[in-house]
Amino acid sequence: MKTVVVRNIPRADEATIQTLAGVGVSTAHEAFGRFGLMKPYMRPIWADAEVAGSAVTVLAQPGDNWMLHVAVEQCRKGDILVVGCTTENTDGMFGELLATSLIARGVVGLVIDAGCRDVKALTRLGFPVWSRAVSAKGTVKATLGAVNVPVVCAGALVTPGDVVVADDDGVVVIPRAQAAEVATKAAKRNADEDGKRKRLASGELGLDMYNMREALQKAGLVYVDKPEDV
Amino acid sequence: MKTVVVRNIPRADEATIQTLAGVGVSTAHEAFGRFGLMKPYMRPIWADAEVAGSAVTVLAQPGDNWMLHVAVEQCRKGDILVVGCTTENTDGMFGELLATSLIARGVVGLVIDAGCRDVKALTRLGFPVWSRAVSAKGTVKATLGAVNVPVVCAGALVTPGDVVVADDDGVVVIPRAQAAEVATKAAKRNADEDGKRKRLASGELGLDMYNMREALQKAGLVYVDKPEDV
Amino acid sequence: MKTVVVRNIPRADEATIQTLAGVGVSTAHEAFGRFGLMKPYMRPIWADAEVAGSAVTVLAQPGDNWMLHVAVEQCRKGDILVVGCTTENTDGMFGELLATSLIARGVVGLVIDAGCRDVKALTRLGFPVWSRAVSAKGTVKATLGAVNVPVVCAGALVTPGDVVVADDDGVVVIPRAQAAEVATKAAKRNADEDGKRKRLASGELGLDMYNMREALQKAGLVYVDKPEDV
Amino acid sequence: MKTVVVRNIPRADEATIQTLAGVGVSTAHEAFGRFGLMKPYMRPIWADAEVAGSAVTVLAQPGDNWMLHVAVEQCRKGDILVVGCTTENTDGMFGELLATSLIARGVVGLVIDAGCRDVKALTRLGFPVWSRAVSAKGTVKATLGAVNVPVVCAGALVTPGDVVVADDDGVVVIPRAQAAEVATKAAKRNADEDGKRKRLASGELGLDMYNMREALQKAGLVYVDKPEDV
Amino acid sequence: MKTVVVRNIPRADEATIQTLAGVGVSTAHEAFGRFGLMKPYMRPIWADAEVAGSAVTVLAQPGDNWMLHVAVEQCRKGDILVVGCTTENTDGMFGELLATSLIARGVVGLVIDAGCRDVKALTRLGFPVWSRAVSAKGTVKATLGAVNVPVVCAGALVTPGDVVVADDDGVVVIPRAQAAEVATKAAKRNADEDGKRKRLASGELGLDMYNMREALQKAGLVYVDKPEDV
Amino acid sequence: MKTVVVRNIPRADEATIQTLAGVGVSTAHEAFGRFGLMKPYMRPIWADAEVAGSAVTVLAQPGDNWMLHVAVEQCRKGDILVVGCTTENTDGMFGELLATSLIARGVVGLVIDAGCRDVKALTRLGFPVWSRAVSAKGTVKATLGAVNVPVVCAGALVTPGDVVVADDDGVVVIPRAQAAEVATKAAKRNADEDGKRKRLASGELGLDMYNMREALQKAGLVYVDKPEDV
Repeated sequence: MKTVVVRNIPRADEATIQTLAGVGVSTAHEAFGRFGLMKPYMRPIWADAEVAGSAVTVLAQPGDNWMLHVAVEQCRKGDILVVGCTTENTDGMFGELLATSLIARGVVGLVIDAGCRDVKALTRLGFPVWSRAVSAKGTVKATLGAVNVPVVCAGALVTPGDVVVADDDGVVVIPRAQAAEVATKAAKRNADEDGKRKRLASGELGLDMYNMREALQKAGLVYVDKPEDV
Repeated sequence: MKTVVVRNIPRADEATIQTLAGVGVSTAHEAFGRFGLMKPYMRPIWADAEVAGSAVTVLAQPGDNWMLHVAVEQCRKGDILVVGCTTENTDGMFGELLATSLIARGVVGLVIDAGCRDVKALTRLGFPVWSRAVSAKGTVKATLGAVNVPVVCAGALVTPGDVVVADDDGVVVIPRAQAAEVATKAAKRNADEDGKRKRLASGELGLDMYNMREALQKAGLVYVDKPEDV
Repeated sequence: MKTVVVRNIPRADEATIQTLAGVGVSTAHEAFGRFGLMKPYMRPIWADAEVAGSAVTVLAQPGDNWMLHVAVEQCRKGDILVVGCTTENTDGMFGELLATSLIARGVVGLVIDAGCRDVKALTRLGFPVWSRAVSAKGTVKATLGAVNVPVVCAGALVTPGDVVVADDDGVVVIPRAQAAEVATKAAKRNADEDGKRKRLASGELGLDMYNMREALQKAGLVYVDKPEDV
Repeated sequence: MKTVVVRNIPRADEATIQTLAGVGVSTAHEAFGRFGLMKPYMRPIWADAEVAGSAVTVLAQPGDNWMLHVAVEQCRKGDILVVGCTTENTDGMFGELLATSLIARGVVGLVIDAGCRDVKALTRLGFPVWSRAVSAKGTVKATLGAVNVPVVCAGALVTPGDVVVADDDGVVVIPRAQAAEVATKAAKRNADEDGKRKRLASGELGLDMYNMREALQKAGLVYVDKPEDV
Repeated sequence: MKTVVVRNIPRADEATIQTLAGVGVSTAHEAFGRFGLMKPYMRPIWADAEVAGSAVTVLAQPGDNWMLHVAVEQCRKGDILVVGCTTENTDGMFGELLATSLIARGVVGLVIDAGCRDVKALTRLGFPVWSRAVSAKGTVKATLGAVNVPVVCAGALVTPGDVVVADDDGVVVIPRAQAAEVATKAAKRNADEDGKRKRLASGELGLDMYNMREALQKAGLVYVDKPEDV
Repeated sequence: MKTVVVRNIPRADEATIQTLAGVGVSTAHEAFGRFGLMKPYMRPIWADAEVAGSAVTVLAQPGDNWMLHVAVEQCRKGDILVVGCTTENTDGMFGELLATSLIARGVVGLVIDAGCRDVKALTRLGFPVWSRAVSAKGTVKATLGAVNVPVVCAGALVTPGDVVVADDDGVVVIPRAQAAEVATKAAKRNADEDGKRKRLASGELGLDMYNMREALQKAGLVYVDKPEDV
C-alpha cells in the first residue's frame, strides 16, 4: 500500500447525484443491474437519512483514526466520506468532533467499515452515519493509511469520486462513469413503479401483472388442494 | 422437495388468534411451555407492532423471491406470510410492492428468514415485518420453491395454518391444534401477572413472593457479609 | 466457582457517580486511558438513556435467571445490576416483573450479557437495559450462580462496587478506587472539547489544531495531485 | 413442549440406510431434490467419518444434558443420536462417557446442535460426532426436555426414525418414507457421475457436456476479447 | 490503563501444574466447579497438544504486537503467554520468529485472543498455539499496552501467575491460590471416571449408574409407547 | 453489472509467480506493505497446500454456480480460479466434477467466497481449495454473472491476472504490475529472516535485536517489580 493522499479527484455532476439521492438505494441498485451494494451489516445510526454524494475514500488501520483527520482536508461540499479498514475493526474512529469538521466543509455523510461513537450528538447534529458498529472505543493516531485510493468497504469497491447513495436500506456505490445512466434508469424505474403500486393496491396479483403463470407451470410448479395431497 | 403450492390450509379460529395477539410473544411462549420461539436474530423493522395470524408458508431459494409472488394469491385476511429459505440468505426478497399486494389481501404481517428492503415505505405503510436483515440486494425469479409446506424459519418449525405471534420481543409459533389451549393459559397468566406486578412494585421481593429461600439454601447458596469472606 | 452471595459491597461516592453519568461513556472511557469498555454487541434496548451507578454483579447460568431474583435483594438506590453468564446465552432472563422489583429498590439500570424481554413494557417504564439480545425465551430457576463476585461481562471485568457508565455509545466500567480521578479528568476533558468544537465548527482543520502535519510527513505521508500520480 | 420420551419409533430398512451411507451427503442431498441439509456450521470433530443411521432425537435445554442420558436407553444398533436445543448453546453436553454408552449400544454417531468435549478421546474411540462447537463447558442435569419428538437441528427438521447421513460435507436428513426412493436415485446418480468424471478428466468442457452454450447466449451472456472491451 | 510491565509474578508449584496438564481441560474445569473456561472460539492451530503453565499476560492494542516483544523477556521456563486485546482483533500478532524466542526461553505455549500466522512453521516447531483466528495480517509496533496485569482473554479473567491448562477441548484458567486443590480434585475425578467408563462400556446405563430415574419421574418425565401417543 | 466474459487477460511471468508461491502468504503480504489480504474466514479445506497463480475471476450469484462452468474454459495452466459472490452465500458451488475439469486444464487452486463440497474427494485429488464454508448445498444454473471482471473476494479486490498466493495462513492478492517487485522484496525478506531466526533461537531478545528499548521508554513504558506496585 502506498501511504499517499490524492488531492484532486473527479466528481460526478450535481444533478446526477441529486437524482440518485432522490430514488434511494434499492432503486439505484436495481437500475445499476443489482451491483455495487455494501453488505447489510452497514447500518445507519439514525433512521430516515437519505443522501448521495461523491466518495472521498480513506484506508484506515485498525484502532487508528489518523487518516480520517487527514481526509477532512480533502473533502468538499456534497462529498461523502467512505472509510475502509485494512482488517475487521469496530473501534469508534469517528465522533462529534470529526463530524463538526465535516459539517463545516459541507460533507453530507459518513460510511465507515468500523465503529462510530457520540451517537446522540451525531443524531442531534443531523449528521448521517452508516457504520458496522457503535463503539466508544478510542483510537490512536500512529500509523499511516491512505486517502483517495480505491478501497473495499463492506464488500464493495469504492473508487474516489464514485457516487455513494445511502438510506435506511443500506449503501450502494455507483462508478462515476455510469452514474448519469444509472440515474436516468432509476428515475424511469421509479415512475414505472407508481403504476404497478396502484394496480397491486387495487388487488391485481403480481402473478398476473408480471405474467408469471406460464413460466411457473413450465418450470414444474404444481398446485394441490390440501396438505394431504402433497 | 416437492415444488408444490397447497391451496387450502386449515386455520385457527379468529378469537383464539386475537387473544394470542393481545397477550404478546413472551406470554404466549411461556403458556406454550417455552417452546416454538424463533431465534432472536429475527427482529422487527419498526417498533411497537403486535400481531398474530395464520401462517401461510413459503420455502424460497437464496437470492430468489419468485415463490413470494406465488404465495400472495394463497393469502387471506388475517394471515401472516412466513418465509423460510433453503440456505442462509440476507437478500432483499420483500419490499413495498409485495407489501402493497399483501395489504390488499388483508395480510397482517411478514416473517422472513432473509432480508427485506424499502424499510421507510414499509414503516409508512404500517406493514409489520420481522426479518433477519435489511438489504437492498435485488433478487431473481428463476427457481421454484414451495408454498404451504412445513418450513423451518429462524430455527422454528412452521406448519401452514399455525398461529404466528410477533411483537418487539420476537416471533413464536403455536401449532393450530394447541392454539386455543395456549390462548386460554396465556390470558390467565396475564391476569396472574397483574397481581404479582403490584406486589413487586410495593417492594415485596420475588425471593419471598415465589418462596425461593428454602430451595436456594437446599441447593447450597451461602451468604457472606463482605467480599473478603468469599 | 463459589455459589455465594456477598451482602455488603463498597460503593463509590454519589458525586463521582453523577459526574460520570453526565460526561457519558465515550468521555469516561477516554479519561480512564481507553480501558474498561464492554464489547459493542452490548446495546441499549431504547435510545437516549444515560446512567451511571454502582455495580451489583450476578454470575448466571445459561437459560437460568434464578440468581437475578437473589440479586434484587442486594440492590440499593443508585445501583446498576450487571449480569455475566458462564457461557454465551441469549435467553430472556429479564423482563417487566424483575424490572418492577428493581425500580422499587431505586436501581437505575441493567447490563446483561444475555437476553431481555418485555421490551415494550421496559421502554414504557423508562427502565434502561443494555443487553446482547432481545429474546422472549423463558428461563428456569434450577442452578446456582453467585451474586457480588467479580464477573466478566461482554469482555470487561466488573468487580462489585465498580462504577458502571452506560449510554447510547455502550457501557464502560471504572474501578471504584479510580472513579474519582477519572471523573475529574473526564469533566476537564469535556470542558476542553467545547473549545475544540467551536474551532472545528468555524472551519479550522484538526490537522492544524492538533499539529499533525509534521508527524504525518515524518511518518512518510506523501501528497499527490491526481489519481494517476499514485 | 411435552416432557416426554417415545419408546418405539419406526426405522428405515437397513439396506436403504447402508446405500445412503455409501453415496454420502452431497449425493443424497441432490437425490432428495436439494432439501433436508443442516446448516454448514455443523462440522465433524474428526475427518473421514461416513455414516448413516436412524435418528433418535433429543430436545435439550441450554447448559443441560439430562435428556442425553435419558435418550441412550432408547437407542439401538445402527441409530444416530440427534440433539436439538431450545436455544443456541455451545456447552459441552457430550463427551467420552456418553460415547462409551452409545458405542455399547451400537450407535454409529452423534449430531448435536451444541458443543461436545473430550475430542481426543472421541477420536481415539473412532466415534464420529458432528457438532456446532467444541467446548469443555460442563452441563447440569436439572431441566426436562424430550426424547423422540420432532426437533429442529441446525435448521433442519428431524423426525424420529428419519435417515441421517453425515460425512465431511455435513449432515442431511431424509424422511423415512422417502428414504428408499432417495437411496435408489442417489445410487443411480453416483453411477452417472463416473462417466461424467471421465469425460471431464479427458478435457471435455462442462459447457459442452451439459449443453450450456445456447442457454447462456439466450440469457444474454456476452464474450469480449480484452478487459478494455467491457 | 497503566502502560506498565510487572517483572516478578508469583507462580504455582511445578507438581500442581503438571498434574493439571495431565488431567486436561475438561476435567480441570469440572474440578474447579465449572468455572474459568475461555469461550469456544479459542481453538488450537494443531491437534493433540496438551499443556499447562503459569500465565504471563499481555494486554495488546488492535493491529499492534509491540507488547508481545516486551513480554518475551518476562517469560520463564514453563510459562504460557496469554494475550488479551483491548478490542476484537484477528490480526496475525504472532508467528515463527516470536515462537523461536519463546521456545528459547522454555515457554510451553501461547493463548492469544487475536490471530496468529506461520501456522505451518509453528506446527513443525511443535509450538502449541490457541488463537481466535489464523491470519497473515501484519501488525505494527506503535502503541503501548501492558505486561503482567490482569487481562480478559476470550471471556475469562487471567491474573498473572494463574495456571492455564489447554488442549483440544479449549483453555481453562485456574487461579494460583486454588490450583493445588483443583489439581487434587481433578486427579481424583479422573480415577473415578475409570470405573464409570468400564461400567458404561459393559452396557450399564447412566440412568441407573447415576440413579436418575426417580428424579426424572419427580420432575414429570412421561414415557409413551409410540409417536401417536404424544 | 455487465454479464460478460473476458477471454484474454494479461498474466504475470511464471518466475515471479513461483517466487511468490515459495515465500508464502505472510511474507508476500509483508513485502507488499501489508496490503491485499483476504479476510481470515477464507480457510483451506486441507492443510499444507502452498500455491500461487494468475487470477481468473468469477462473479457468481447466490446459490448459482453457472458462471463457474463458464469460467473453466477461460482457465490456463498455472491459473487460480477466484470466485466472488454478489451476496454472502455458503452454498456448495464447487465439488469433485468441477475440480476434475480444472485439473485437466492445469489450474492450481480455487479461492471461493462461498462454499465447496466433496471435501474428501478434493483432498484425495490433491486439489487445493480455500473457501468460506464447506457445504453440500446444491446450486442451480439459472442466473448470469461475469467472468474475468474485477471482483471483491473476502474483502480483497481481485483484478483478472493478479497474482494470488495461498497457503495455510490465508490468501493474498498482488496486482500484476507490482508482482515482480513484491517477489524480489519478499525473497530478500525471507533471507533476512534466517539470520534473525538464528539470533532469537540462541536467546537474544527481540527487544535488543530490534532496538526497541529506547522507543518503549520514550512512549512511556514503566517497569515495576511486583503486582502490588502497579
